[in-house]
Amino acid sequence: MVPNGKYYWFISSCKMSMQSQECLILQWVSVSTHYASTLAHGWKGLATFVQGQPDKPVVKTEVPGPRSLQLKSNLQSLQSAGSVSLFANYEKSIGNYLVDADGNILLDLLTQIASVAIGYNHPRIIEAMKDPKNMTRLVNRPALGLVPPADWMEQLNEGLLSVAPSGLTGLQTMMCGACANEHAYKAAFIHYQAKRRGGAPSAEELESALWNKEPGCPDLAIMSFVNGFHGRTTAALTCTHAKPIHKLDLPMLKWPHAPFPQLKYPLEENIVENEAEEMRCLDEVERLIEEREDAGQLVAGINVEPIQGEGGDNYASANFFRQLQYICDKRGIAFIVDEVQTGCGVTGKMWAHEHWNLDEPPDIVIFAKKMAAAGFYYKHTLIPNQGYRIFNTWMGDPHKMVVLEAVLDVYKRDNLVDNMAAQGEHILGGIKKLQAKYSGQIENARGQGIMVAFDCADPAARDDMISRLANKGIVTAGCGTRSLRLRPAAILEKCHVDIFLDALEQVLRET
Amino acid sequence: MVPNGKYYWFISSCKMSMQSQECLILQWVSVSTHYASTLAHGWKGLATFVQGQPDKPVVKTEVPGPRSLQLKSNLQSLQSAGSVSLFANYEKSIGNYLVDADGNILLDLLTQIASVAIGYNHPRIIEAMKDPKNMTRLVNRPALGLVPPADWMEQLNEGLLSVAPSGLTGLQTMMCGACANEHAYKAAFIHYQAKRRGGAPSAEELESALWNKEPGCPDLAIMSFVNGFHGRTTAALTCTHAKPIHKLDLPMLKWPHAPFPQLKYPLEENIVENEAEEMRCLDEVERLIEEREDAGQLVAGINVEPIQGEGGDNYASANFFRQLQYICDKRGIAFIVDEVQTGCGVTGKMWAHEHWNLDEPPDIVIFAKKMAAAGFYYKHTLIPNQGYRIFNTWMGDPHKMVVLEAVLDVYKRDNLVDNMAAQGEHILGGIKKLQAKYSGQIENARGQGIMVAFDCADPAARDDMISRLANKGIVTAGCGTRSLRLRPAAILEKCHVDIFLDALEQVLRET
Repeated sequence: MVPNGKYYWFISSCKMSMQSQECLILQWVSVSTHYASTLAHGWKGLATFVQGQPDKPVVKTEVPGPRSLQLKSNLQSLQSAGSVSLFANYEKSIGNYLVDADGNILLDLLTQIASVAIGYNHPRIIEAMKDPKNMTRLVNRPALGLVPPADWMEQLNEGLLSVAPSGLTGLQTMMCGACANEHAYKAAFIHYQAKRRGGAPSAEELESALWNKEPGCPDLAIMSFVNGFHGRTTAALTCTHAKPIHKLDLPMLKWPHAPFPQLKYPLEENIVENEAEEMRCLDEVERLIEEREDAGQLVAGINVEPIQGEGGDNYASANFFRQLQYICDKRGIAFIVDEVQTGCGVTGKMWAHEHWNLDEPPDIVIFAKKMAAAGFYYKHTLIPNQGYRIFNTWMGDPHKMVVLEAVLDVYKRDNLVDNMAAQGEHILGGIKKLQAKYSGQIENARGQGIMVAFDCADPAARDDMISRLANKGIVTAGCGTRSLRLRPAAILEKCHVDIFLDALEQVLRET
Repeated sequence: MVPNGKYYWFISSCKMSMQSQECLILQWVSVSTHYASTLAHGWKGLATFVQGQPDKPVVKTEVPGPRSLQLKSNLQSLQSAGSVSLFANYEKSIGNYLVDADGNILLDLLTQIASVAIGYNHPRIIEAMKDPKNMTRLVNRPALGLVPPADWMEQLNEGLLSVAPSGLTGLQTMMCGACANEHAYKAAFIHYQAKRRGGAPSAEELESALWNKEPGCPDLAIMSFVNGFHGRTTAALTCTHAKPIHKLDLPMLKWPHAPFPQLKYPLEENIVENEAEEMRCLDEVERLIEEREDAGQLVAGINVEPIQGEGGDNYASANFFRQLQYICDKRGIAFIVDEVQTGCGVTGKMWAHEHWNLDEPPDIVIFAKKMAAAGFYYKHTLIPNQGYRIFNTWMGDPHKMVVLEAVLDVYKRDNLVDNMAAQGEHILGGIKKLQAKYSGQIENARGQGIMVAFDCADPAARDDMISRLANKGIVTAGCGTRSLRLRPAAILEKCHVDIFLDALEQVLRET
């Protein structure tokens, strides 16, 4: 092992792959490494990607502790704070470790709902924030659709375009996953109507659009899927069908939703049954499109997550997505892939849809979360001809481009996409072993890269497990009704996976 | 005049005030000052709030120049760039002056669609970005609804709460003006249904909410106004009725819109007629609420801008807004004031609704733009009881809190809200003089603080004037159909106003 050089490790695990159904393959994964050293924290960690991480979690109080609970009670005076799980000390947090307000040092396998790419206080991001050449991007926030910086194309080339999905040459920056969804739908609607209309809009269309009426505001829809999640603004929320609390009391658009395949795990042992389930859903997609058309509503786009991340880590096969794209192409509907939670390498490829081997790219690919920036890539043909249609004041944030450049630097330097593939196999292999040993307590272990989940017996057992893991110093979260999900950072290493697997086994033994 | 001390200036102008109809009052305004010095730019400016600003615009090419046009053409390969007016060199821009990609030095009276509070590269913001104690907020972006920083309440107290509208104790941070609108509506809907329901939601409500159906997703509406603008996501855009291009081809919610008063200017000379117009609109508000109710749709909130900023700088009297609040209170409807463009002191008070002398505050006040942060203040009674209802991954951005703290520091130190009141009177007084001298070319000069506009003869004349002003080195923009609007920064000074008025007179003489 050479300091600052390369080392290799040997992984024996079960690779979840819808295409190849490979199992128990052996593969070499190379990961560049950096020696740990003692930082201000006084921690001399085993982890190599980020120096100065603690060796393991340290739990000093119940989690959440009294300080977090007090702060939550204070915040409740201002806003609905029921969702707050912990308060954190971000100054002291480092790498994969979140330090909470009570001084507990927690291995964070949730990482701010899957939105922290390279962990807390990564030295490369700190360096970028200190770099005088980046100062103007921290200080000045342009209206990017009106007065972009002269080097805006260079910024996009260096950052977002350097990892663009193959074949997608259009790019629109936005502010967050929800508004990226909203504006992606707009691109689909505008394109759909441009094709239908074939020319300039009529005076009647322009006038009626002001009053939310047809023909200017036509009865178009984006089709979504049961258990999907796309965001919290009205159109994105209309496409969301994960939990009632997201939508209760809120008027929504009347758009159709199709069933998403409910597959049996392990996928490689239930191929025939799962194929039938996927066919049922695809048939329903087509039936619903026609049913809506008969009712006067035209589906202009289908919006789907590669893995339903809030709705229960639900998978579908590459073939399902290829068929869905085929239906879209056949009917002139935009095929929109929401990669807010699956993008940025977490599945072991930069974009989850790369696992599908599509002949041509999706029409639109939406990103946010770990990408720091948000927005969508899209086909050149979907770019509106007129300005001010996909538009708002800020349309992004240069500060986030500085973060993203640092993230992508580190991804490249440390081969983090490969690392996520490797660590994911290690986690999933470990959970599968525990699943075999503690059958009845956990089941349906599934994952692609570091996006890993399993099911507990019921919602109460799942919530209890999250709490027990937290009290062993490990932050996880639920999804769906009884699933526990892991959303670690890209800098997760084998030492962290082992800590998690040990803690999980302890919890399983206790309960 | 004492270095770094105070000086006073004497202003004789016409104060637009709906309450007092004062005219040609004399008032003393005190403004703290800082001596100009020669900075790296080599400019020794006359302006005192920010050192190193140039003395005047310098136009070297046509505006937009060849470099901006080339960059725009390049960007068009990626996205719809039709809205781009200029590319800027933000490194060289300073204070009120935007330096464009062609090296033109432009006095910026638009400031990124009214979103730059204290000008470009303000030393206080640069200092804040360099301050090591702020580093963690630049580097780590928490999910603020899930794991806020331990000092989050302190951050809110120091920043957003220090300028909260009187009487509003609830605060929700968001990402931008549009998503602040979306979530403000959600707060109104949730509150409205909680009152209607009186208890826990039924199983039927919870189940139907997942599928966008009643009773879980009830037929509630936010009423908006003709010529209003609230943002580009679906619910905010449903409330927007400013230009067809904003909405064409996009399916919208079926919510009602009331007429906004079309007042005659100068307001103080058309009191009786304007009062009648406002009564007509208020009657229509009530009629529409009842009409919708008869059709099965309940109006849960009314969303209004104090000055319709995109729709034409349209004013209404304090009495109009008080009556609107009265209608809301009487009917149990949330009175939502969208201060995205009018907030942060631009009208000469921190919040434009302070001009209305309300007995109690609005239910919700929305902010973004110059506030750097976005979100809404609201009454404590509107805070939802359960978590995860007003929620998304990021719910704001600590980097923007660092910017806001610097902005508010400078506002206080330099008395910038008073400055905006004073400069606004100077601009408006000057335009009114030109309006008298060049009658027929410009009319309906109107303003409150630095939010000033006037009308040209027609849209073409307005667009021509914007272009001519740009070629004299002054950035302005249109609003409504034939209005030209000014949206300068809070650090505007008399020397800048004089440059603008001189240029405007030159343009009027030329045409």
